[in-house]
Amino acid sequence: MVGLEGFAEPAVIAPYPHDTARLGAAGKILALLREKACRDVVLIGPVRRPSILDLRPDTEGAKLLARIGRAAFGGDDGLLAAVHRVLGEEGFRVVGAHEILTEAVGGSGLLGRAQTDAAALADIERGRAVVRALGSVDVGQACVVQQGIVLAVEAIEGTDAMLLRAKNLARPGPGGVLVKLVKPGQDRRTDLPTIGPATVRAASAAGLRGIAYEAGGTLLAERDAAIAAADAAGLFLLGVEP
Amino acid sequence: MVGLEGFAEPAVIAPYPHDTARLGAAGKILALLREKACRDVVLIGPVRRPSILDLRPDTEGAKLLARIGRAAFGGDDGLLAAVHRVLGEEGFRVVGAHEILTEAVGGSGLLGRAQTDAAALADIERGRAVVRALGSVDVGQACVVQQGIVLAVEAIEGTDAMLLRAKNLARPGPGGVLVKLVKPGQDRRTDLPTIGPATVRAASAAGLRGIAYEAGGTLLAERDAAIAAADAAGLFLLGVEP
Repeated sequence: MVGLEGFAEPAVIAPYPHDTARLGAAGKILALLREKACRDVVLIGPVRRPSILDLRPDTEGAKLLARIGRAAFGGDDGLLAAVHRVLGEEGFRVVGAHEILTEAVGGSGLLGRAQTDAAALADIERGRAVVRALGSVDVGQACVVQQGIVLAVEAIEGTDAMLLRAKNLARPGPGGVLVKLVKPGQDRRTDLPTIGPATVRAASAAGLRGIAYEAGGTLLAERDAAIAAADAAGLFLLGVEP
Repeated sequence: MVGLEGFAEPAVIAPYPHDTARLGAAGKILALLREKACRDVVLIGPVRRPSILDLRPDTEGAKLLARIGRAAFGGDDGLLAAVHRVLGEEGFRVVGAHEILTEAVGGSGLLGRAQTDAAALADIERGRAVVRALGSVDVGQACVVQQGIVLAVEAIEGTDAMLLRAKNLARPGPGGVLVKLVKPGQDRRTDLPTIGPATVRAASAAGLRGIAYEAGGTLLAERDAAIAAADAAGLFLLGVEP
């Protein structure tokens, strides 16, 4: 396991054989992968997109950066596609986390005890249209809708920050829903939407009634704990077909 | 002038002949307009969309609400179109602020001294595509783009809140731009994007290099003060053609 410094939580990777590297230290990362005779690579967890200036690439990193090209910094998909291409050219096979953690991929329909109603389903439909429109311009994966009103739209701040904001924008009456989908055309081998107990708690704190996620395209981190948290909060978890 | 309680600032309307009313007190509002023999109505200033429960309509308000229909609460445009329709049916003519404050409507090209460069123009193009996509699902009017990355997208929190957030999401290197446009298909008689000295100061505090707004579709509140603030901050103000 190669933990990216500043992103991977040391306590989480500590129990496993691992090393760490800066995101810009592509030479070190590739050397580590080769040293351990890795063939397949799984990219997992959120990485805040670095500024080019922030990256401080090592020698190999600078070469890779030249191959990726500045243009790839224009959108999430462009950069990830380029990273995949480069890893492929270096002889690695990029495998999606959902191909390995199959039991963690959310299916279609409800998990847990809380149910949807007509108002929630209408909010989910509106949220899906919004996330689709956003995805068409390579932005975000999520939004919050309450009573037909889009309270918040996610860009790079992340879902938790968006939920915190939605809390202060909520209006009286039935609570809203978090809609989190795979971007249209998104390569599922990276950056797959993830929902876990922390997401459920943040959604509940924001006064939401439920979370809708894309069936077959969402990682349920700590699935049982997430369902238990949803049941405790009376929050529905709904897998929707793309 | 009818100031909506909780939205109109008392100090701003104090110098003019005025009265105030709750948003839900449609009966009182219509009675005030008729008492003063108003024929034309100009709607100006932001109104946070009320929850139906929050509205506490008076008798006339409840009737109007029934005419507007619950469906109109689904998106900004739906509600505003319905409000226009009802005002028209009641015998009033809704006039856009930009038709009266013609000198306050921003034109095409640069105002003030600061110039754009290729990077800023690229950020503006990306921002325009994002705002267009959002507008197609009746959400927001603005976003912040830096170095090709969409830092923040506006939903109902308002531009100032979005700028505050963008400040913490900014990365090192050249600053971003605020792109604020008229929604496609938006009725310009209400909710026209407005930029003023406060917007300029908030954009500057967020580390932005400039503001792009839609030529012919943006109210420049306190135009001279806005330009002076932009010049002081080294921030460009660019009117872009729709």
